[in-house]
Amino acid sequence: MSKFWSSLARQVNPYIPGEQLNDETIIKLNTNENPYPPSNQVIQAIDKESKNLRLYPSPTIDELRSEIGNMYGLSQDHIFIGNGSDEVLAFSFMAFFEPGKRIKYPEITYSFYPVYAKLFNISFEQIQLNDDYTIPVEHFYDSDGGLIFPNPNAPTGIYLELEEIKRIIENNPNHVVIIDEAYIDFAKESAVSLIDTFPNLLVIQTMSKSRSLAGLRIGFAIGNPELINGLERIKNSFNSYTVDRLAIAGAIEAIKDNKYFQQTTSKIIESRSYLEKQLEARHFDILPSQANFLLVSHKEVNAEILYQKLKKQGILVRYFQKPGLENFLRISIGTPEQIDKLLKKIDHIIKPSP
Amino acid sequence: MSKFWSSLARQVNPYIPGEQLNDETIIKLNTNENPYPPSNQVIQAIDKESKNLRLYPSPTIDELRSEIGNMYGLSQDHIFIGNGSDEVLAFSFMAFFEPGKRIKYPEITYSFYPVYAKLFNISFEQIQLNDDYTIPVEHFYDSDGGLIFPNPNAPTGIYLELEEIKRIIENNPNHVVIIDEAYIDFAKESAVSLIDTFPNLLVIQTMSKSRSLAGLRIGFAIGNPELINGLERIKNSFNSYTVDRLAIAGAIEAIKDNKYFQQTTSKIIESRSYLEKQLEARHFDILPSQANFLLVSHKEVNAEILYQKLKKQGILVRYFQKPGLENFLRISIGTPEQIDKLLKKIDHIIKPSP
Repeated sequence: MSKFWSSLARQVNPYIPGEQLNDETIIKLNTNENPYPPSNQVIQAIDKESKNLRLYPSPTIDELRSEIGNMYGLSQDHIFIGNGSDEVLAFSFMAFFEPGKRIKYPEITYSFYPVYAKLFNISFEQIQLNDDYTIPVEHFYDSDGGLIFPNPNAPTGIYLELEEIKRIIENNPNHVVIIDEAYIDFAKESAVSLIDTFPNLLVIQTMSKSRSLAGLRIGFAIGNPELINGLERIKNSFNSYTVDRLAIAGAIEAIKDNKYFQQTTSKIIESRSYLEKQLEARHFDILPSQANFLLVSHKEVNAEILYQKLKKQGILVRYFQKPGLENFLRISIGTPEQIDKLLKKIDHIIKPSP
Repeated sequence: MSKFWSSLARQVNPYIPGEQLNDETIIKLNTNENPYPPSNQVIQAIDKESKNLRLYPSPTIDELRSEIGNMYGLSQDHIFIGNGSDEVLAFSFMAFFEPGKRIKYPEITYSFYPVYAKLFNISFEQIQLNDDYTIPVEHFYDSDGGLIFPNPNAPTGIYLELEEIKRIIENNPNHVVIIDEAYIDFAKESAVSLIDTFPNLLVIQTMSKSRSLAGLRIGFAIGNPELINGLERIKNSFNSYTVDRLAIAGAIEAIKDNKYFQQTTSKIIESRSYLEKQLEARHFDILPSQANFLLVSHKEVNAEILYQKLKKQGILVRYFQKPGLENFLRISIGTPEQIDKLLKKIDHIIKPSP
């Protein structure tokens, strides 16, 4: 604590991201990165763009917005681009949630939401999940100040059907409903199709997971132009250029190379099924995930111990020291080779030699 | 205005950056970009790093912080890295300025300061400059909530001597003094040398101007580790990774290639003298600039008209439609060739054929 800190700097409760070790021998299955590299087209576009770095990026990012819009049959006025979906989320809390009015989000969810709420002085109600970790739809009706949840939810991976999301939006006509679709490309379908019907729906996506670009920082929001305009107002009061030239150039190609995107996404979904079956055979309980990770717990071995032992043997998975998650591990879906190594280590840990 | 906007989104007054036209035939002297490309080492490092884009960047950015620290003989604990100096400024307003306590900044200065003040609900006092556009040092004493100004000031380009800055800091022992050194590499000396003496001094710099990296978004703050820690708390409540892998890799090399930096900076300083003399000969009044731009006004021709005519002829300079600046143009220092083209156009405009 410093006497020079503002009361805000004193009161915040910063987010702690998953460990980022600088050790290439470690198998990193802890931060939901894509195990496959980005498309070659992305790399080539970055290489070409690097000659223009002396110039500021586009402040309006029209080309990328139009590319993303096209993908969903929407105009670029429906698209907002930010520095990762975290920045888009932060701007959304500022643009649509009101201090003094209570927002709702699930009790088990992306742990950045309470951090934003604290930072922007937004009060909140955490809605307890059902016993099977699904979202209790009716409890999200009639919010006082708006609501937010990921679909699929994180870190459960559980997907909520569009019909249910529709019911939630219909029952919150005067507030913004934010669906955080960081993992949607590994799931059934996006809520973007509801945007034309609901002016209060904002969908947030990222290129960090399904487009293999965690290192490039591209997130985006899709919504009614009125909502997009609100985000622009906040962003332009904060930093005119939050997305750099190389990120813009790379992101455009990541959208354009749809074939590569489909291939890698399918491979991950296949690997997810494989890992699920293999872990079931090893007496794990597994939540039904539509994301690029599984939330699992072993019937006998304690999660924290398993996490520590895997780490010692060169495999990082995510352990959350949080109420309700004490006995879970979140395992990102790696390549088939990484998964087989993981399974071997697990076999070694849970079945010690007699 | 939308019914879904928060009161914050309604009340902000967004910053409008200089025009960024997508036309390579235009000579762009309007946003203080460096006319020279970044060092080749930067381009090579980016090329090499692009293979790692599937992975998140370092959340602590140790290598770059240590590189910048070394440059000033400080440890990495004294360095904070952000997405352009604008993001660093925004975080600083949040971390060190208190709603309800009035900060001070010059009346003519970087026009993002009032935008931040509005966004974060900070009250402020705008201090009028002296008649010669210098900063009235005594008026910055005993601030109620801290203070900020650029050195050299923008858009005047006028440099304030370190002795004067020292007096200002000494007379604000209980509040943070932020010196925004976006243009310092074209000027006499940085206030970084005062950091060991004053725990309340924060210096903010950028790689956008002197390192030719406006398109890459790298800004940084230098100060006492207590202040840096305050910035980290805010940043980690906002977005864990605001600087991407390519930006980190490129920025490290931009610092390392000191020779190229010295060469290009010297060329710009030389060109500034040249442009100054040439404009004086053409009856311009010119403020004594230590930045990579000149703030000028012609004795007879109105600034807005001159701006419009130059734009029509393919040269963009910056015109501010603001009280106190109505008859000024800000001209970024280009290459000698660009400067000669500018002078030719000016000759044509101010001396119409008889």
